[in-house]
Amino acid sequence: MAGHLSNIIEMIKPLDEGAMAKARARQNMLTKPRGSLGRLEELSVKIAGIMGKEAPHIEHKAIVTMAGDHGVVAEGVSAYPQEVTAQMVDNFLKGGAAINVLARHIGARVVVVDMGVAANLEPHPLLVPRKIASGTGNMARGAAMSRGEALRAIEAGIEVIKDEVAKGLDIVGVGDMGIGNTTPSAAICAAITGERVAKVTGRGTGIGDEQLVLKVRTIETALALNQPDPKDAIDVLSKVGGFEIGGITGAILGAAAYRIPAVIDGFVAGAAALLANGLCPEVKDYLIAAHVSSEPGHRVMLDYLKLKPLLDLEMRLGEGSGAALAISIIEAAVKVLAEMATFADAGISGKLE
Amino acid sequence: MAGHLSNIIEMIKPLDEGAMAKARARQNMLTKPRGSLGRLEELSVKIAGIMGKEAPHIEHKAIVTMAGDHGVVAEGVSAYPQEVTAQMVDNFLKGGAAINVLARHIGARVVVVDMGVAANLEPHPLLVPRKIASGTGNMARGAAMSRGEALRAIEAGIEVIKDEVAKGLDIVGVGDMGIGNTTPSAAICAAITGERVAKVTGRGTGIGDEQLVLKVRTIETALALNQPDPKDAIDVLSKVGGFEIGGITGAILGAAAYRIPAVIDGFVAGAAALLANGLCPEVKDYLIAAHVSSEPGHRVMLDYLKLKPLLDLEMRLGEGSGAALAISIIEAAVKVLAEMATFADAGISGKLE
Repeated sequence: MAGHLSNIIEMIKPLDEGAMAKARARQNMLTKPRGSLGRLEELSVKIAGIMGKEAPHIEHKAIVTMAGDHGVVAEGVSAYPQEVTAQMVDNFLKGGAAINVLARHIGARVVVVDMGVAANLEPHPLLVPRKIASGTGNMARGAAMSRGEALRAIEAGIEVIKDEVAKGLDIVGVGDMGIGNTTPSAAICAAITGERVAKVTGRGTGIGDEQLVLKVRTIETALALNQPDPKDAIDVLSKVGGFEIGGITGAILGAAAYRIPAVIDGFVAGAAALLANGLCPEVKDYLIAAHVSSEPGHRVMLDYLKLKPLLDLEMRLGEGSGAALAISIIEAAVKVLAEMATFADAGISGKLE
Repeated sequence: MAGHLSNIIEMIKPLDEGAMAKARARQNMLTKPRGSLGRLEELSVKIAGIMGKEAPHIEHKAIVTMAGDHGVVAEGVSAYPQEVTAQMVDNFLKGGAAINVLARHIGARVVVVDMGVAANLEPHPLLVPRKIASGTGNMARGAAMSRGEALRAIEAGIEVIKDEVAKGLDIVGVGDMGIGNTTPSAAICAAITGERVAKVTGRGTGIGDEQLVLKVRTIETALALNQPDPKDAIDVLSKVGGFEIGGITGAILGAAAYRIPAVIDGFVAGAAALLANGLCPEVKDYLIAAHVSSEPGHRVMLDYLKLKPLLDLEMRLGEGSGAALAISIIEAAVKVLAEMATFADAGISGKLE
């Protein structure tokens, strides 16, 4: 493992138990029956442990949307043509995509990263250029990328987070854009969890029955050909992954290293979370699963990571769209902890004995 | 039925199918795979139908929190003493309760209504005084209120909405505060849905096993004694209801009459929704179930009303807390519809054929 990556992994420490105990004690003094805010209470305690603060505050929010293209689209696995990846990046930069609307709604900035779009993107003040290559190789015919490229993709994701931390960052949502990228995500899911390909493969942007059969067969071929080692996340990424998936993996590790909650969007970000967990299982404590996507493999990933999704809104867009909605709920949870009156403050009678 | 109430019920019309068709068509042109935003898409279409606008806009938001006391607390059904209702109203007015924090988070105003608190509340600029009486009668020993009081409670709730509409109101969340009020809510649920009392009765603010048995027995006694007519919502409200439940019933009907989406909080607001539905089944189209509470009867209510909750965060506080979180999601849904670029706007390629 490269020096840079292992340094970041060493920075990932357990949650701050002291801050969590204080946050839990404070929750129990607030003017509401104990536990009556359910998952909001749990979330606030988890964020306290991540940030190491009894009553954390969330101000600076970012959605990091990583884009990349996939050689495997040559097999006909996607409902949309590859050029849509670059067109959607342009849409992100102009503010017209779902993630722009949802990020504005929650007061977050959108950080668009070119990890490997198969087009020359014009420089733009809002575009972070981290292109590893112009799309991956076709994993049904060989490795998606070299081991060196896989490492560079992860390290680029770490760098993106470092740069955002420098600007101010209290919470980050990670999402993806890449035509065809549910195919490598399902491959990663099958490789790491050991589930059958047919069980973890879905319709992505909306393919029909015949194309779904082809997609399953393509993933089976790629796994049989490349033989990714499930114990070696970098091997899995290089053989059946994608550049944006590697970038998100790095962003997740970077967030945990800097004690920033990482809100995982959907199926593609979930594949990256599997890889990050493979590199450093302690990272799980820093993850919040935003929602459960309607891609069938997403539930398999979340169960494997023992993460319980916050939302179930039958979404399957990616981009960080579910993460944006979840961040608003998480922010509400920490505000409850910081801002509510205690029984003593408010002069309210306690529970009858 | 009183003239006022029947006038409001007559104002409740079906959703605007034309606006819904246009909203649906617009959703299908936005730069995302069709249906990929799941329930956000459905919500935006429903809000279009409610407001009668192709691309509705939500600006003015309110949480209406109705407070009342309950004579049935004399039976020992609650974990907290009755004085907490008035103390919590004071907490709402000072801004220290969960609903204040959550309403601030979503940019909504909180409208606190005294529907029947068993204390003389000092006048306060933020308190709407609509007291029908100082707490209901003990439903285990007789009717909770007279039929006239039940009607006046509903009409007071309608008036509250009229006043809020005059200030500007695009969406309203309805919630409750009242020590002991899960007891009448469970009674209403059992009376109207026909479910067994034991199945729809929960621990409220946190009672133990013995007290839960007592609570179930108390509700069974009240239903046997009062014999509420499930086909007559006003009869049910008067015999086993509460003033804040009547107020919320009126607020729901008022919202529907003025074509304003009514976001139903938890179990107590759900009991009011059952009553509103009993008075006017068309009201259902105007309702959005914010979340499913951990009170077991809430799921029974939602199934009866054929409403699918937006959130499941294991909350059981009331006050409108779940409604506040849901309003943020609903607002996100209408912003997506109004603000996203279309494929044509953004010059993005469509689906492959």
